[in-house]
Amino acid sequence: MERLPGFRDFYPEPLPHADTWSADARQFIFDKWRETAKRYNFREYDGPPLEPLELFTTKSGEEIVGQLYNFTDKGERAVSLRPEMTPTLARMVAAHERNYKKPIKWFALPQLFRYERQQKGRLREHFQFNADIIGETDPAADAELIALLIDTLRAFGLTEQDFVIRLSSRNAWQEFYKTKMGSTRVPRVESGVAPDSSFRRDAENRTPEACAPRNDSTNEYNFFQIIDKLERTPKEESEKKLSALGFSLADVNQFIESGKPTAELENILQNLAARGLGSFVKIDYRVIRGLAYYTGIVFEAFDAKGEFRAIAGGGRYDNLVKLISGGKVNLPALGFGMGDVVLLEILKARGLLPKFDANVDVFVLIEDETLRAPSLKLIQELRAAGFAVEYPLTPAKPDKQFKRAQELKAAFTAKVESESYVRIRNLKSRDEIVAGFADAANHLR
Amino acid sequence: MERLPGFRDFYPEPLPHADTWSADARQFIFDKWRETAKRYNFREYDGPPLEPLELFTTKSGEEIVGQLYNFTDKGERAVSLRPEMTPTLARMVAAHERNYKKPIKWFALPQLFRYERQQKGRLREHFQFNADIIGETDPAADAELIALLIDTLRAFGLTEQDFVIRLSSRNAWQEFYKTKMGSTRVPRVESGVAPDSSFRRDAENRTPEACAPRNDSTNEYNFFQIIDKLERTPKEESEKKLSALGFSLADVNQFIESGKPTAELENILQNLAARGLGSFVKIDYRVIRGLAYYTGIVFEAFDAKGEFRAIAGGGRYDNLVKLISGGKVNLPALGFGMGDVVLLEILKARGLLPKFDANVDVFVLIEDETLRAPSLKLIQELRAAGFAVEYPLTPAKPDKQFKRAQELKAAFTAKVESESYVRIRNLKSRDEIVAGFADAANHLR
Repeated sequence: MERLPGFRDFYPEPLPHADTWSADARQFIFDKWRETAKRYNFREYDGPPLEPLELFTTKSGEEIVGQLYNFTDKGERAVSLRPEMTPTLARMVAAHERNYKKPIKWFALPQLFRYERQQKGRLREHFQFNADIIGETDPAADAELIALLIDTLRAFGLTEQDFVIRLSSRNAWQEFYKTKMGSTRVPRVESGVAPDSSFRRDAENRTPEACAPRNDSTNEYNFFQIIDKLERTPKEESEKKLSALGFSLADVNQFIESGKPTAELENILQNLAARGLGSFVKIDYRVIRGLAYYTGIVFEAFDAKGEFRAIAGGGRYDNLVKLISGGKVNLPALGFGMGDVVLLEILKARGLLPKFDANVDVFVLIEDETLRAPSLKLIQELRAAGFAVEYPLTPAKPDKQFKRAQELKAAFTAKVESESYVRIRNLKSRDEIVAGFADAANHLR
Repeated sequence: MERLPGFRDFYPEPLPHADTWSADARQFIFDKWRETAKRYNFREYDGPPLEPLELFTTKSGEEIVGQLYNFTDKGERAVSLRPEMTPTLARMVAAHERNYKKPIKWFALPQLFRYERQQKGRLREHFQFNADIIGETDPAADAELIALLIDTLRAFGLTEQDFVIRLSSRNAWQEFYKTKMGSTRVPRVESGVAPDSSFRRDAENRTPEACAPRNDSTNEYNFFQIIDKLERTPKEESEKKLSALGFSLADVNQFIESGKPTAELENILQNLAARGLGSFVKIDYRVIRGLAYYTGIVFEAFDAKGEFRAIAGGGRYDNLVKLISGGKVNLPALGFGMGDVVLLEILKARGLLPKFDANVDVFVLIEDETLRAPSLKLIQELRAAGFAVEYPLTPAKPDKQFKRAQELKAAFTAKVESESYVRIRNLKSRDEIVAGFADAANHLR
């Protein structure tokens, strides 16, 4: 019987087959994610892997359904396996935000699901590190979140030679849009308005456009779509589409190449520089991110050589909590997601995955079956003292036992020699000592 | 927008509402499960939360579908959220067992799902610690698994005053069945056969009965059903049903009360006694466990006062790998499952849950905004040194900052006093020192 297409089996290492995934590597990644989040005082949360379908269509529109692992349950509810964590987070925060001091700094390690008919062989699930800050508009929150992203990647041994955060801003693009529109066809209005204000907290209805800028027109939405696809579209096509909206590709490219940070981005850069993290970030206005709901800064983490897909992505989504709560709770927010699949590829490519094995501390040899009972006593005592202990469950030849101890990369063997004495051997140094039974654990540090 | 009925939201502590669950307590439980499993050299694995429906009906028959969270996916596949882990484990082991030395000792912490129409308010998901040993028929494996179960509960601080392992055996009951049948109506056959042999490795087809004993009759199956329900059924009814099969309730009760262990059970008890764990186990033949697929020992962990549902349950299922693999792989196996919900109830009732908080090591006070940049530098350095650090993202009054440090139960505050010096305060002892910037981390241990 086979598992479903697009799902993974996670086995202990060494892996039995190229078609299987490492449970040890997964846990290694989870541990680093948790550990870094905790250094930044992010608290863990989780929600159900199954949610009402409406939670996701409210955020992303009905179009999203084509990509969801959704179905009708036995109670006739339209439900979906979660494709992302943010709507669940927004729902949970909206329900109980009064009980938490702002800013709320939370993380989760959800398994996420999608169902796309056309993509055979592609994974239908992955795990994601999600970190979010809720309740703070100041760019200091953006800097804190990006610092967490940088330090998460560094926790795996990745350096500024390995990855870069491409930082951009919807606000910068909107300012560009308004300025250029003003300079060519439309009288410039609202010039005194701060560049980010019109992007935020103005969702009034439940269509995907609700998350787009307040004075959004189809034109502005289309403009963002063209920018988002710039890198993957032939020049002539972009040129044509842009000029239909009253823009020139030359202006767009000039703006991108200038890489001139807005005041908000400058603030973030200085904050990161003060932490000594400046070299990990560069302004890159080509990043705009497809999701309609971002409202301020957006960013992606890429490997420096550009060999892989994005390692992580995120940004501000100041309207989403209000949207999900039906207008009841209005809190600014930002976050990122980092998947386990691309990260694992990069760690493998850079040789940054440790060698995983059983991590047995002590292998207890039972060569004399009349000493099995005191051997079991020793095993119990060593385990109670915190050691990982293995032993032969059934009678086995001494050389076979020793071979097994070596296969398991045991640090020590211990052999009960009488009711009172234990022979302990350090398998690396080959030192041997005989210890009193009660004293054995002290010789294993 | 509400979450689905029967699903849980996990929040950081302190919990905002009685209707929410603790993400911290969940992680505490997961950590203890992992830590104990590793001391016993069990390796972690995982499979997909969604599996072909057939995987579960193969094991448990079509009747199981009424309790499953199953549906038809967009590829017209009959699928189900996993209600238990064992079929996935059997599938995974059958696929790649040649790559692993026997016995295989594996564990997993899956989230499991069920959908029962009638039970409103009851949870439809929970997490479970699953530990299994595959490839060993010797009772030494049974003892090793039960020892792990005992030590897992002890890792939470539970003692022999708190819980007991009720140990039983299908083989013992089958022997009783055969003996009593032989003595009354049917000529006794196969008396030279070891009591457990006919229970094992004989599944030939894919019905639930495939897992039952080879020389199973509907009668024997019904007999087990009566025994399983004995505690919850009126005496007269059991008496009537038993005598219809040729047994007397008196005989059954006498057998239960004798509590005389079979040779196999005696072996397990002696093994556990050698470890010093004898007092945690008692023979209790009332335990037979409903699942048709158990083939040897069965056991349950109960709180000693009998206030809660079973904490854990398991046993031998020597036919399942063969069944799931379509006869290709034949390996004896045994395992147990321990859910997070009952365990959490007991830990709460016994006062064994620690107080969870943010676990902040250092709160960096920023009272002088001109020192924000060097403060960020300090924060970065402390986090890089492994400390959990919090600080005010935006300007805040000194007393408000200090109050926040206290709320977060920070061990220390640190305040940059110049580009060169940091004032460090131990919030417990109230000791204060001024340290050089580079030396600050050394004063925080």
